[in-house]
Amino acid sequence: MATAGKVIKCKAAVAWEAGKPLSMEEVEVAPPQAMEVRVKILFTALCRSDVYFWEAKGQTPVFPRIFGHEAGGIVESVGEGVTEVAPGDHVLPVFTGECKECLHCKSAESNMCDLLRINTDRGVMISDGKSRFSIDGKPIYHFVGTSTFSEYTVLHVGCVVKINPEAPLDKVCVLSCGVSTGLGASINVAKPPKGSTVAIFGLGAVGLAAAEGARIAGASRIIGIDLNTNRFEEARKFGCTEFVNPKDHSKPIQEVLVEMTNGGVDRSVECSGNINAMIQAFECVHDGWGVAVLVGVPHKNAEFKTHPMNFLNERTLKGTFFGNFKPRTDLPNVVEMYMKKELEVEKFITHSVPFSEINKAFDLMAKGEGIRCIIRMEN
Amino acid sequence: MATAGKVIKCKAAVAWEAGKPLSMEEVEVAPPQAMEVRVKILFTALCRSDVYFWEAKGQTPVFPRIFGHEAGGIVESVGEGVTEVAPGDHVLPVFTGECKECLHCKSAESNMCDLLRINTDRGVMISDGKSRFSIDGKPIYHFVGTSTFSEYTVLHVGCVVKINPEAPLDKVCVLSCGVSTGLGASINVAKPPKGSTVAIFGLGAVGLAAAEGARIAGASRIIGIDLNTNRFEEARKFGCTEFVNPKDHSKPIQEVLVEMTNGGVDRSVECSGNINAMIQAFECVHDGWGVAVLVGVPHKNAEFKTHPMNFLNERTLKGTFFGNFKPRTDLPNVVEMYMKKELEVEKFITHSVPFSEINKAFDLMAKGEGIRCIIRMEN
Repeated sequence: MATAGKVIKCKAAVAWEAGKPLSMEEVEVAPPQAMEVRVKILFTALCRSDVYFWEAKGQTPVFPRIFGHEAGGIVESVGEGVTEVAPGDHVLPVFTGECKECLHCKSAESNMCDLLRINTDRGVMISDGKSRFSIDGKPIYHFVGTSTFSEYTVLHVGCVVKINPEAPLDKVCVLSCGVSTGLGASINVAKPPKGSTVAIFGLGAVGLAAAEGARIAGASRIIGIDLNTNRFEEARKFGCTEFVNPKDHSKPIQEVLVEMTNGGVDRSVECSGNINAMIQAFECVHDGWGVAVLVGVPHKNAEFKTHPMNFLNERTLKGTFFGNFKPRTDLPNVVEMYMKKELEVEKFITHSVPFSEINKAFDLMAKGEGIRCIIRMEN
Repeated sequence: MATAGKVIKCKAAVAWEAGKPLSMEEVEVAPPQAMEVRVKILFTALCRSDVYFWEAKGQTPVFPRIFGHEAGGIVESVGEGVTEVAPGDHVLPVFTGECKECLHCKSAESNMCDLLRINTDRGVMISDGKSRFSIDGKPIYHFVGTSTFSEYTVLHVGCVVKINPEAPLDKVCVLSCGVSTGLGASINVAKPPKGSTVAIFGLGAVGLAAAEGARIAGASRIIGIDLNTNRFEEARKFGCTEFVNPKDHSKPIQEVLVEMTNGGVDRSVECSGNINAMIQAFECVHDGWGVAVLVGVPHKNAEFKTHPMNFLNERTLKGTFFGNFKPRTDLPNVVEMYMKKELEVEKFITHSVPFSEINKAFDLMAKGEGIRCIIRMEN
């Protein structure tokens, strides 16, 4: 390609400071170094994690920064040593990588790569500690190694997932974070048996994807729990059969669920990150066989508390990260699930805006409207 | 049999009040009612649970009572409707039953029978709410449906496990509680992969059996943790390869274990029932794949506390009851493991006394000497 090895000037939505609307700027994107890949982003989406770190309430502020991590694009050029992808490949950038060399990558059970595990404080590339983005020679920082709110971005090859080139990138781009996280929490971790009852706490994109996963696994009762009643009608499309709003009950919601299900649900998946919901999600599973899965990220000072007899009565509690998918190994198969129409991705996509209107996506999320807003880079 | 259908007069060790030495008495044992079995006990052993409820510190006092639940015997007669065992069968009484009809018994994952789950407060048979033991017409209460400190006892058929008649009852009697509990916690629940590292908290009979289970499963490092250094030499026989005494360290023991094992153990099994040990056992497992299993019974006011990120980093915490063995379905196979010399039972048996000296077994346990003391009913 004509641009390979050269700096590319392109548009990026830069966050100059916490909580302020993104500003469309011309940035310089340096060529990929060894084991790096430069990708032309075609579609990206806004995920709640972008908003958390953009607001930077309680998180380390790293500014100026280019956010964005749910996306789909095409490889523009590759750095030295990159053999797994080549220019022209269709790829999903992923916020957590898979080096394929560390103990975690070599374990069949883990996806928490030692080298490329998510690091929200780091704003630079791991090889040289520098940013590949700049404006007038001053660095603009990366976000979780992806920074997809830019027409071009640079990633470590371990964070680049090569997918079926026939998959529509404007749809499968949402598989690079939230949807896979929720889906995997159900199908890889909770593993609800056919005909079982599953409770889903928190009906945002991740929770709806967890419901979708429970539906795919064959659960027959899927109970959605959310404080926002507006979520309930939408959730039916994702397999939810019943709804509980904790505000409608005076007793602890775990007791309500135990009564509704003759002793407890078979599986629960907690997607809100609220510590009380985590405890409720654990305490509502049936003794003898119940499994609760934690997905939502808690406050840093949160404490999980329960009576240990709840464990001894043969309940299991496990957490998952990115739905236990190994990004490079497993995500291509999730894309294939979509291609085979086993997984319905379209229903997660409720809005779409051109790149120039990216701040509208932030407004929609602030209002709690819709599920995913696709940001089109080219028009 | 000549005794079938009649009251049997025999010797039993009666606890008249909490914490007082047992008293050898002549008791009357009523014939088994519908779905009950009367068993002639040949060998019994003392387990720590007998001592807890005999001391009745914090537990409901139920006296006068006949304790004992680890035992082996021969069926003397059966009540109406009993078809699974017959007079002459060799059996192990079990403190928790398997009705084979309830949701738990029908679930492949649970052994917590709704009908016959352990109930330490109940001192009577479930069919009619009465005791089968009496002295001068006054009831002597049962303990966990077994009451094996008697030459004859009556059990619900769901608490009677028919075993290979060639298995020596003076050895396999210890499989009816503690040894199976620890063994099952490792082989059925923790399931350590071959070559893995396992931490065992608490090196009593249950913990040593958990170590034996880890050894059988093929773990290569088995780290025993106990406050009593005397336990360590004994534990080597059960596969322990390393020992940690928390008293020897100033930092939290989970940190010590994480350092010893390059990030954490693959599996841990908590057998002490101490709430701090439970938290340590969870926090010492490796992120990405670590599984902690709780076995020891906690204090009723205990609270399990940890930061939820410990779960989200892909750690699993589960509890087990009786090693997840379904008593009637699975224990005959544990006996076969012994018969095939896969499981070594002899090393658990460190002492033996005649029935008349049963209080010596209590003294040995109070002193922390040995592992299991077999009580011989006939000589």
